[in-house]
Amino acid sequence: MNTETYQPCIEACDACAAACDRCASACLSEPGVANMAKCIRLNADCASLCRFTSAALARQSHLAPEFCALCARICDECADECARHAPEHCGTCSDACRMCAEACRAI
Amino acid sequence: MNTETYQPCIEACDACAAACDRCASACLSEPGVANMAKCIRLNADCASLCRFTSAALARQSHLAPEFCALCARICDECADECARHAPEHCGTCSDACRMCAEACRAI
Amino acid sequence: MNTETYQPCIEACDACAAACDRCASACLSEPGVANMAKCIRLNADCASLCRFTSAALARQSHLAPEFCALCARICDECADECARHAPEHCGTCSDACRMCAEACRAI
Amino acid sequence: MNTETYQPCIEACDACAAACDRCASACLSEPGVANMAKCIRLNADCASLCRFTSAALARQSHLAPEFCALCARICDECADECARHAPEHCGTCSDACRMCAEACRAI
Repeated sequence: MNTETYQPCIEACDACAAACDRCASACLSEPGVANMAKCIRLNADCASLCRFTSAALARQSHLAPEFCALCARICDECADECARHAPEHCGTCSDACRMCAEACRAI
Repeated sequence: MNTETYQPCIEACDACAAACDRCASACLSEPGVANMAKCIRLNADCASLCRFTSAALARQSHLAPEFCALCARICDECADECARHAPEHCGTCSDACRMCAEACRAI
Repeated sequence: MNTETYQPCIEACDACAAACDRCASACLSEPGVANMAKCIRLNADCASLCRFTSAALARQSHLAPEFCALCARICDECADECARHAPEHCGTCSDACRMCAEACRAI
Repeated sequence: MNTETYQPCIEACDACAAACDRCASACLSEPGVANMAKCIRLNADCASLCRFTSAALARQSHLAPEFCALCARICDECADECARHAPEHCGTCSDACRMCAEACRAI
């Protein structure tokens, strides 16, 4: 695959990372933050793996498929957890995670 | 500033980071790679500071202005160095660095 | 400065990053997590800037002094905030932040 | 596993990341840099995955074993490539990669 082929996945990873960091930050300001701990933990794993994967794709790493497979898995977990919570930022994050998981599986 | 206000800068940082990682990777395949060492070094600083800054903006860090100021500076340096080289990836990267520097200075 | 000169600062940055990530994770399991939000936010900024700075030092980046100056500043803030909290992980983190700030100012 | 159990692997990941970043930077100054391109590419993958893994271990991520498995794999590849090159920084890096791969497989 060439650089152009990776572009949609790079954008999905970047969008997912931003959504996860936003969600974690907003969760910390929620009145029921104690119930959001698992969400915040998954956001941290997902945001940093998405940024790592995005960088690896831009570098055309030969291990891109392996990185994307693991990234899709953590995106799925984060999407599931976010979907269990009411705040809008969780819903937005869940959607971004689903799109990123799909884009990663297409690599 | 709120999350929406930061969005253009987050996108500029992400685009710049990807352009820098691509440029570094392409530089390594250039016949005259020895002449590209400084470019590759600046690409590494710029890509990682852009990703750090993008994440800090998404987290609504209260130090976002300080991070953006430093990010703008390294983007300027990387843009200048890339502009000295002929390959297309260097020109693309130089443009992305300029746009990111501007977006960072707007914070 | 050469690679050996940077080594103590690299180790202080790595130790501080690990202490911050541990502190944030432990804060999320504290009964009074709502009171730890500011600590968790600063931990995130500090951990990621320390990792960025450590990498820049290892790469012998010419901007190492600028990165270290900003890193010292965020380490100071995180040390102050952690020092306000009772849990042991906060005390450990505060100490690691102080040592990292000092090592960064020595660059 | 608890925080103390992860500590040796965190330290091995941090040492490996620093060795990889140093090796890449030193490779760029070698007279035969064109022959070091593969080494520099693997250094980039390995350094960033080691830093990601170190952070995930410090956060006590429940996916630590999966991250460590992938980290061990890229460490092995980087160790093999570095072992093919004469410069001292490549030998040092190869050793750090082997130790990190072992520590990751112990998780």
